[in-house]
Amino acid sequence: MSTDLLSTLSQTLLMGPGPSCVPDPVYSALSHPTIGHLDPRFIGIMDEIKGRLQTVMQTRNPLTLPISGTGSSGMETCFVNLIEADDPVLILKNGVFGMRMADLAQRLGADVDELEFEWGTPVIPDAVKEKLARKSYKIIAVVHAETSTGVMNPVAEISRLLADTESLYLVDCVTSLGGMPVDTDGWHADAVYSGTQKCLSCPPGLAPVSFSDRAISLLKARKTKVPNWYLDLTMIINYWDGDTRAYHHTAPINMLYGLYAALGALLDEGLDQVYARHKAAHDALVDGLNHLGLSMAVSEESRLPMLNAVNIPNGVDDAGVRTALLKEYDIEIGAGLGALAGKIWRIGLMGHTARQENVDRLLSALKTLL
Amino acid sequence: MSTDLLSTLSQTLLMGPGPSCVPDPVYSALSHPTIGHLDPRFIGIMDEIKGRLQTVMQTRNPLTLPISGTGSSGMETCFVNLIEADDPVLILKNGVFGMRMADLAQRLGADVDELEFEWGTPVIPDAVKEKLARKSYKIIAVVHAETSTGVMNPVAEISRLLADTESLYLVDCVTSLGGMPVDTDGWHADAVYSGTQKCLSCPPGLAPVSFSDRAISLLKARKTKVPNWYLDLTMIINYWDGDTRAYHHTAPINMLYGLYAALGALLDEGLDQVYARHKAAHDALVDGLNHLGLSMAVSEESRLPMLNAVNIPNGVDDAGVRTALLKEYDIEIGAGLGALAGKIWRIGLMGHTARQENVDRLLSALKTLL
Repeated sequence: MSTDLLSTLSQTLLMGPGPSCVPDPVYSALSHPTIGHLDPRFIGIMDEIKGRLQTVMQTRNPLTLPISGTGSSGMETCFVNLIEADDPVLILKNGVFGMRMADLAQRLGADVDELEFEWGTPVIPDAVKEKLARKSYKIIAVVHAETSTGVMNPVAEISRLLADTESLYLVDCVTSLGGMPVDTDGWHADAVYSGTQKCLSCPPGLAPVSFSDRAISLLKARKTKVPNWYLDLTMIINYWDGDTRAYHHTAPINMLYGLYAALGALLDEGLDQVYARHKAAHDALVDGLNHLGLSMAVSEESRLPMLNAVNIPNGVDDAGVRTALLKEYDIEIGAGLGALAGKIWRIGLMGHTARQENVDRLLSALKTLL
Repeated sequence: MSTDLLSTLSQTLLMGPGPSCVPDPVYSALSHPTIGHLDPRFIGIMDEIKGRLQTVMQTRNPLTLPISGTGSSGMETCFVNLIEADDPVLILKNGVFGMRMADLAQRLGADVDELEFEWGTPVIPDAVKEKLARKSYKIIAVVHAETSTGVMNPVAEISRLLADTESLYLVDCVTSLGGMPVDTDGWHADAVYSGTQKCLSCPPGLAPVSFSDRAISLLKARKTKVPNWYLDLTMIINYWDGDTRAYHHTAPINMLYGLYAALGALLDEGLDQVYARHKAAHDALVDGLNHLGLSMAVSEESRLPMLNAVNIPNGVDDAGVRTALLKEYDIEIGAGLGALAGKIWRIGLMGHTARQENVDRLLSALKTLL
């Protein structure tokens, strides 16, 4: 009786907004023997994870590590460590994940301004420029790859607007990391967060974050303690860095084995090759969908390779098609979120999933179902 | 290169303060295929986990679920959902984990009173009674099994003192759950939290929590939003309960497979048998240590079965012995924490570790080393 339900699991083709398919070496890593969180062998794995994350996040930031929670805990970490009451914060918002940022910043007592853009379209840098001319902000936050709409925001362009300001730049890279370049240092980003279950192709459970030295200085100069014990980076860095390795909380050992292997697979393949694979799979998907008479919800120049928003044709039963894909073809795709529920499907091509054979399998199933 | 360091891992005998040894069916569960967090098969596993946790936590509380973080995130969840600014909170403190509670409650803006007891001795109910006669508290918090000292606190006795009050009773059961009875409903506990890496014998990464209906009413009547998006139970319950299963954050799928299997193993063996196994291993350890001339740091009536604080004899090299145990015998034991660093060893007999053969292996190694 104790593990009956696990036998119902299959190698489902995960083409939703995450989790994505997991390669075998990562599954194997997860079930390696648990050792202690202060064991020197484990410290060695932590150091290697940090180095691999720095490579994938394109940063020399010493504070680059995985938070012990899923992607949203990365968002929580970045905001809660940097915000103090009444801090002016600007959220650039064009989807569900921008909304979340605003909600969280408000919960933390920040003075939040929101600059909203139409869902399905990108943030417009000129509008941001105008806003910045009128008010100084401690933090400007934006989502790189808006998972709810499939839109890529112009984070590099926005970063150039901040060059002459004191503002910290906070970027959500949950869906982009590992599927397209995340240029943390090039963007002069001060706080970046991601998740493991998207283009890193590791199961959900960890949130890579990176803080610039400027962000750390600000954190250390806080007037009040971080109002979150679990995610207080001033304590967590003492476990991830230095000689003493002071215990803070028991690290999620086996999940970290998985991340170590997932990052290894990515770097073995080569980042450029991985990005090219995502782009090729995306192009093949768009082409195939067009042949089926389906249209993309986002205009070509702003489309994400790893998250494809597809308009549901009139008269087609949204949930019916998704259920049939899952039950008859063992393929998962995602529903629309928030204002886009019932209007779009979200087809993920993330990490290990982003391959021609998977695109073909989905297109063939859709052809039969539609 | 990508997974080289994993080959350095061995089946270390984990006799520290957690993580504990993990049984094979749990390792196997971790590497089952990842499926979507809204897949009906996964919802089925979530429901089963909830039911199993209710059994192990001895509660009918509908809000009984694992938080997506390690044990400390369970502490964070209980406090951040229940505390609003200036709420009077009483922390009963006799070790590191009581200190953490006080630190966290202060970070959240509570009006915190601390009632401190000598480390290595239990909370004294009469002192609590006196304190309660002088002031009303919204929350009284105590650690059931103080992992830093090996002391069992009299949580049932304290609960009786609260019978005529409006106070919420918050109990840390991180180390006790699965190794000795945790009687959530019998204690009229309103918020209980634990971790997976102690007596549940699952790797670290999840924090079971349970909230009473009274705690939920209070949560729903908050004047302010929970100042933590990731751990806001008003949103998390909509994913773990009801018909709609609204997405909040992507659940840590594979870790939850592991918890499902770990709880299954526990219930297959039978809770009473599991508790008896912990007690028998503890008795054998104490007996063997006495034969080696080592003394226990906690008096007999307050000793925890699963966390044994042992006085380090004069002239013995604390770190030297622990390092030799790990390197030569592949056995991990724990150091003292805080004020007890260098004074005690902490020997864990948690979950799968709590077996006669493991006790014998440690005693034999200690005999050679001392």
